[in-house]
Amino acid sequence: MTVAARLAAHPAPAPHADLLAAAVETALDCSQACTACADACLSEADVEDMRRCVSTDLTCADVCAATARVLSRQSTPLEDVARALLVACVAACSACGDECAQHAGHHEHCRLCAEACRRCADACRALLEVLA
Amino acid sequence: MTVAARLAAHPAPAPHADLLAAAVETALDCSQACTACADACLSEADVEDMRRCVSTDLTCADVCAATARVLSRQSTPLEDVARALLVACVAACSACGDECAQHAGHHEHCRLCAEACRRCADACRALLEVLA
Amino acid sequence: MTVAARLAAHPAPAPHADLLAAAVETALDCSQACTACADACLSEADVEDMRRCVSTDLTCADVCAATARVLSRQSTPLEDVARALLVACVAACSACGDECAQHAGHHEHCRLCAEACRRCADACRALLEVLA
Amino acid sequence: MTVAARLAAHPAPAPHADLLAAAVETALDCSQACTACADACLSEADVEDMRRCVSTDLTCADVCAATARVLSRQSTPLEDVARALLVACVAACSACGDECAQHAGHHEHCRLCAEACRRCADACRALLEVLA
Repeated sequence: MTVAARLAAHPAPAPHADLLAAAVETALDCSQACTACADACLSEADVEDMRRCVSTDLTCADVCAATARVLSRQSTPLEDVARALLVACVAACSACGDECAQHAGHHEHCRLCAEACRRCADACRALLEVLA
Repeated sequence: MTVAARLAAHPAPAPHADLLAAAVETALDCSQACTACADACLSEADVEDMRRCVSTDLTCADVCAATARVLSRQSTPLEDVARALLVACVAACSACGDECAQHAGHHEHCRLCAEACRRCADACRALLEVLA
Repeated sequence: MTVAARLAAHPAPAPHADLLAAAVETALDCSQACTACADACLSEADVEDMRRCVSTDLTCADVCAATARVLSRQSTPLEDVARALLVACVAACSACGDECAQHAGHHEHCRLCAEACRRCADACRALLEVLA
Repeated sequence: MTVAARLAAHPAPAPHADLLAAAVETALDCSQACTACADACLSEADVEDMRRCVSTDLTCADVCAATARVLSRQSTPLEDVARALLVACVAACSACGDECAQHAGHHEHCRLCAEACRRCADACRALLEVLA
């Protein structure tokens, strides 16, 4: 609701306000989940088996953070940039969500991260549909 | 609560869990508020008067984003880095909050951003106190 | 050359080393050019005419920074993420380069930024061709 | 030289142009070195011994990236923010440089990263001296 209120306070808000706010919020949240999960994976006893998870976490965190920033800007819509970033974000969240889901049974941070990835991928897909 | 749950899922959580989670959450939130406020300011009719606000917004967004990321890592506590970043974050949020407060009467995005800055500065100060 | 040496020091370097290093280097450089150009535009007397330039600069800076980070990771190639990010980076650099080129005659920072955008777009396109 | 030229193209350049440009350039470069080193460490056979290096690399990358961005903005000097960030950057580069130096004999990426950290710490210290 806070993100939605901020976007609505823009002098010329972009269309699809609800979908946009959901994408910004879930991308921001997913970026944090991935950063925390990468760090927790690094500290696990089975770190050798978590390398791929750390790496996909870090990439997902970077893509989600950039997506949240770019989508927070409504003053100059660059629709092809937004679309390509959303495609990248869906791909990163899918890869990271799949990887984390494999460790969800024994690492709670992976379970929580997989959830955040799924929510973000869903929100980005929903926004992509109306932008296409 | 989500950020707190993720930090708690780390195999070796850092002390001061509540204060840490509050700092991460408010920094992440403030980063978004500042990014959106800068963009909204750019679109205002009185953009000439909003230059300083755009600039402090952008710097505050960058410092808050870095703070949220660094504080999300509990595996290798670098206390002097964390402390210096928190000092930078308090300074950036204070400068940006003061600037935005001056425009809060006529720009809702500035009012919302000033609030986010104040919350983040408070949370960072509270964490700094126990880290000092 | 420094970026190339670092990527070559990876235990399992990715293919297309030269194209990869060029994309990382130019994306990093373009991110700085765009950040500096946005700030300079804000300080210009004709700031009203530079709004669109500030906004495209900021988005281009974010996309380039994320691209440089993601491409710097060779341990877990996420080819669809890399490709989508490269497409976003080409789009952002093209939009920003076109916008800056319009002001290149009277703002040196725009001329320098348009050059950085063109170099980055070229390097990303070249890498995209071999990844496709 | 490119960064220096961009900063000089600002309508109202900040003082200490050479020191400022050196800090921006080395921070940007160090951010890339740390991102690449973290990823390379993750792929090493002795990943268990490299955990601390990955974590300090990631934090150093984030602090350097934020420092390069904030210092690239000359329009609204926030000297206390800049100073605190520079202190954080020196601390992050020192911690990361020390950690990487321990592995420099057997991991070339750590040797290259330690060098980048040292250069960035030196440039930030030199700028801090004139800002103090």
